[in-house]
Amino acid sequence: MAFSMNLRVQYYDTDKMMVVYHVNYIRYFHTVRTEYFRAAGYPYSDMENEDFQMPVLSVAADFKTPAVYDELVTVSCKITKLAPASMEFDYEIRNAETGELHVTGHSRHGFTSRNLRPIPLKKKCPEIYAFIEELYRSESKEQE
Amino acid sequence: MAFSMNLRVQYYDTDKMMVVYHVNYIRYFHTVRTEYFRAAGYPYSDMENEDFQMPVLSVAADFKTPAVYDELVTVSCKITKLAPASMEFDYEIRNAETGELHVTGHSRHGFTSRNLRPIPLKKKCPEIYAFIEELYRSESKEQE
Amino acid sequence: MAFSMNLRVQYYDTDKMMVVYHVNYIRYFHTVRTEYFRAAGYPYSDMENEDFQMPVLSVAADFKTPAVYDELVTVSCKITKLAPASMEFDYEIRNAETGELHVTGHSRHGFTSRNLRPIPLKKKCPEIYAFIEELYRSESKEQE
Amino acid sequence: MAFSMNLRVQYYDTDKMMVVYHVNYIRYFHTVRTEYFRAAGYPYSDMENEDFQMPVLSVAADFKTPAVYDELVTVSCKITKLAPASMEFDYEIRNAETGELHVTGHSRHGFTSRNLRPIPLKKKCPEIYAFIEELYRSESKEQE
Repeated sequence: MAFSMNLRVQYYDTDKMMVVYHVNYIRYFHTVRTEYFRAAGYPYSDMENEDFQMPVLSVAADFKTPAVYDELVTVSCKITKLAPASMEFDYEIRNAETGELHVTGHSRHGFTSRNLRPIPLKKKCPEIYAFIEELYRSESKEQE
Repeated sequence: MAFSMNLRVQYYDTDKMMVVYHVNYIRYFHTVRTEYFRAAGYPYSDMENEDFQMPVLSVAADFKTPAVYDELVTVSCKITKLAPASMEFDYEIRNAETGELHVTGHSRHGFTSRNLRPIPLKKKCPEIYAFIEELYRSESKEQE
Repeated sequence: MAFSMNLRVQYYDTDKMMVVYHVNYIRYFHTVRTEYFRAAGYPYSDMENEDFQMPVLSVAADFKTPAVYDELVTVSCKITKLAPASMEFDYEIRNAETGELHVTGHSRHGFTSRNLRPIPLKKKCPEIYAFIEELYRSESKEQE
Repeated sequence: MAFSMNLRVQYYDTDKMMVVYHVNYIRYFHTVRTEYFRAAGYPYSDMENEDFQMPVLSVAADFKTPAVYDELVTVSCKITKLAPASMEFDYEIRNAETGELHVTGHSRHGFTSRNLRPIPLKKKCPEIYAFIEELYRSESKEQE
């Protein structure tokens, strides 16, 4: 994975099964995506000021083992695809100490204007496209 | 109370205490407020089209007894105050069958434009003000 | 689809994109699953009293078009697979009036005891298994 | 305030008013309470292992100014009362850089066993009581 951060499981992330409610892991995907862009130097909130949004087109998650209240988890992501009008991410959520794998996931995002109309990102927001392309490239280099 | 509706407690409303997470009752307050306006003939979503919003200025709740997963609860509200720039509601949440009291609450709302600037409602949106005033008046009559 | 219900999009289901936050559609999947079992005569909350749980093993969703605040949506599901230790569902979320397709989805569930240990459902909880098998069979008949 | 931490406003904390949905600030209250106990040396998750819980009996919040997506906020709390069967907290949420006040709040908590029966904390869990009493005392000293 290209970027990792630690999150503490909150009380309100759990349900009566005494573990994290499955849907909330997908929120963690969102958090790590956001922090990845910030850490790389171009926060998503700044991108939004350029009349740009990146709505989720699809998401998938496999729940391997449950995380519990107050557990420190490591949430990781990497870009797996960059196309003219969309991009994709992979995710992992693990126990921060033991590395036990809790969840894997994937999401696909479109590039749109604020009013959710698809845009050709490279033409409309060349700086954002260049930033994402550079991120994706540096990930590929790391893996070589 | 002036208006009541039934809601089913969802799995994701619970936490690892095996009962409804306290914050989620305050979401139920919001739901009943919305349905009260709709039932009375002027949905809040239509009000928003008039460059109007009603943000929550304060909220308070007393949690008496816990509601549990899959319980059918009756959520009720009434208007307790109408002023030129704000209004207030009382709430109750009860078991739908036994009437056992789970939660009581209160909220205060400001009248603003879409950009959250306070507005004198009676002047700016006279139809909305007339609607709310009529609701409040009919509540008072019922209680006589 | 085998079962459908209407849900009203709540204010707290939206995010600053002015549409439903994608993760919340997956909560709707959970709601329709629950109501399907109830409508068919064996509520999930009763199943839990038999030392049974049905945790989500995986979930996937495709977000086609956004649903908006206060929209009435029809959420549907059907069972697509029943195995000795797991079952699967398909989902659809549509505008209740126009039928416009918002979201499709899929989930896979394991059969476990309350402490999340996998169980052979047919042997451990024959009544629950028979109920689900009958549901699945009657769905197949409808489609013929 | 006795303890403060920074939190990043997440996308899913916002609603279509383009600011934080009011209910989510009350989740922040929970987070800071949890981290206060951890920082002081006795995590709440460890307390739960002693057959102890601290359910919320009441909560109140005043929403002064809205926090927005991606804003870094400072969430603070202090203990305002310790009684044999309950305790109370005050809260503040501010912009982390400017100090602008967004929200103030208050919560009251009961001391119970895991099955939510009230317990005399000092007798049943003397170590937890001593810990909380010491926290409360050291807060009072700081203020002198």
